[in-house]
Amino acid sequence: MGLYCFGIDVGGTTVKCGLFQTDGTLLDKWEIPTRTENCGENILPDVAKTIEEKIQERKLNKADIDGVGIGIPGPINENGDAACAVNLYWGFKPVAKELSELTGLSAKAGNDANVAALGEAWKGAAEGSKNMVMVTLGTGVGGGIIVDGKIVSGHHGAGGEVGHANINHEETESCNCGNKGCLEQVASATGIVRMAKKELEASDDTSVLREKTEISAKDVLDAFKDGDAAAVRIMEKVGDQLGGALAIFSCVIDPETIVVGGGVSKAGQPLIDLIQKYYKKYAFSLCKDTPIVLASLGNDAGIYGAARMVL
Amino acid sequence: MGLYCFGIDVGGTTVKCGLFQTDGTLLDKWEIPTRTENCGENILPDVAKTIEEKIQERKLNKADIDGVGIGIPGPINENGDAACAVNLYWGFKPVAKELSELTGLSAKAGNDANVAALGEAWKGAAEGSKNMVMVTLGTGVGGGIIVDGKIVSGHHGAGGEVGHANINHEETESCNCGNKGCLEQVASATGIVRMAKKELEASDDTSVLREKTEISAKDVLDAFKDGDAAAVRIMEKVGDQLGGALAIFSCVIDPETIVVGGGVSKAGQPLIDLIQKYYKKYAFSLCKDTPIVLASLGNDAGIYGAARMVL
Repeated sequence: MGLYCFGIDVGGTTVKCGLFQTDGTLLDKWEIPTRTENCGENILPDVAKTIEEKIQERKLNKADIDGVGIGIPGPINENGDAACAVNLYWGFKPVAKELSELTGLSAKAGNDANVAALGEAWKGAAEGSKNMVMVTLGTGVGGGIIVDGKIVSGHHGAGGEVGHANINHEETESCNCGNKGCLEQVASATGIVRMAKKELEASDDTSVLREKTEISAKDVLDAFKDGDAAAVRIMEKVGDQLGGALAIFSCVIDPETIVVGGGVSKAGQPLIDLIQKYYKKYAFSLCKDTPIVLASLGNDAGIYGAARMVL
Repeated sequence: MGLYCFGIDVGGTTVKCGLFQTDGTLLDKWEIPTRTENCGENILPDVAKTIEEKIQERKLNKADIDGVGIGIPGPINENGDAACAVNLYWGFKPVAKELSELTGLSAKAGNDANVAALGEAWKGAAEGSKNMVMVTLGTGVGGGIIVDGKIVSGHHGAGGEVGHANINHEETESCNCGNKGCLEQVASATGIVRMAKKELEASDDTSVLREKTEISAKDVLDAFKDGDAAAVRIMEKVGDQLGGALAIFSCVIDPETIVVGGGVSKAGQPLIDLIQKYYKKYAFSLCKDTPIVLASLGNDAGIYGAARMVL
């Protein structure tokens, strides 16, 4: 094993970059813009350039660098190829191969949500867990599955696409994916707002949420924590579906730890307690006490996980 | 790699034994009784004895034998310890360690359903698939998850306990596990009979099933294949729940192949077609075409998978 590695997390507007020691110490962290023009043709060359500049700046010996890992918003297969990263305007791109050629370093590529899960399993909330499930509650619901310390990318790159677990066969509205009844329609920020609107329409109860012209997920979560009756009813439904889905995932891979991240998780321990209550109700006996914890690396999870991939 | 290995599958009444070449060729297959008296203390010594006898009979050189794998009905952790195999009357038992000491061979132990899945992934219906899900529809519903060619036993030995995926939060009857709403309550032989009784009670429609004094799952499946309207309604409900559950599992590990085994799977291709129809309805876009196939090794899946564990 060498001394250093790079972890790169490509987002739609910025690329987060990290230089790590191979023991997981983050030595340096910086960002560059994501240039999506011309079908995103500059993105990987820009990454290679900033890595080369960092190597020069720090006077690193390339032989001491184990490689560069990169997280990409979109499905990535086991060879490190992106099928179609729409937010980067890419069609098929052999990301790991191109980045290796551009940098002269060993390179690995993974889906950004999967890579963030690996980061949390390496140095975050699930540190030391060989098997873990991470669910990221943001605008959508993403996730990552770690088995035996490695990302489960799956045969079509859809490993950890837990937001599209179909948990409600009775749903009549469509998810962005085209199906009806996905976890994302309930447990994402957008889903929580949707659930709130339905709940408020279904009753005339007073609620602080009725004072808002436009309800946000944060409004619902704040009202839930303040004990607003309607917000509590909304979040109990969300918790029932989300805790129930996590219980199903546990029957599949029986993780050591379940990590909850993403913007919605800023609601903190009250949200975790709610999820845990329903998880425990629905989980198989052996798995009822599996810890559910808040992600701890925040926006750095991606660079940590990307770095871990090459070690 | 050596030339031979043994695969052992311990059931409640018989122990199935196989001698394999390490390329997967089954050279010899035999059974011994499972002696469960005295808390099953003879089971592993009996296995060691029959292996030793086979080695003598075939004049094998122990140095040419890679080891012995064993499947056990109950949760097995990653060290090869059984927490509590109730059908064998065992409490905690370090199975792999004891079997290794008794035989002088390298030994690995796994849960029987998980081991059968590994057998199907090695030389059966999912041959060549590195990632696969197997669901076994018998008296109960068991299963096994293979990721990267290896069994996912999970942190508590509950990996692949897919029969206890809680898929119906509205269920009022209890599963054997104590929860309400498990897949096993719908898709096992027992579950199919339960679903049939509910359906027949809910209507007065004529059905061949009403002519039976005691309905079996085979009766329901035969009537379904013959187009009996009530049986079709029953099995559509089973297919909806089972196909939907498999679609959720695919969002977790995105397998290359899904294998359906167990006694219920004797219903054959019409059952697979039914499951596939609902799987496709609920699966995430990238996974909609994942093949669902019938198990092909039958009762030999366990010895194949057990042998594979030691290679």
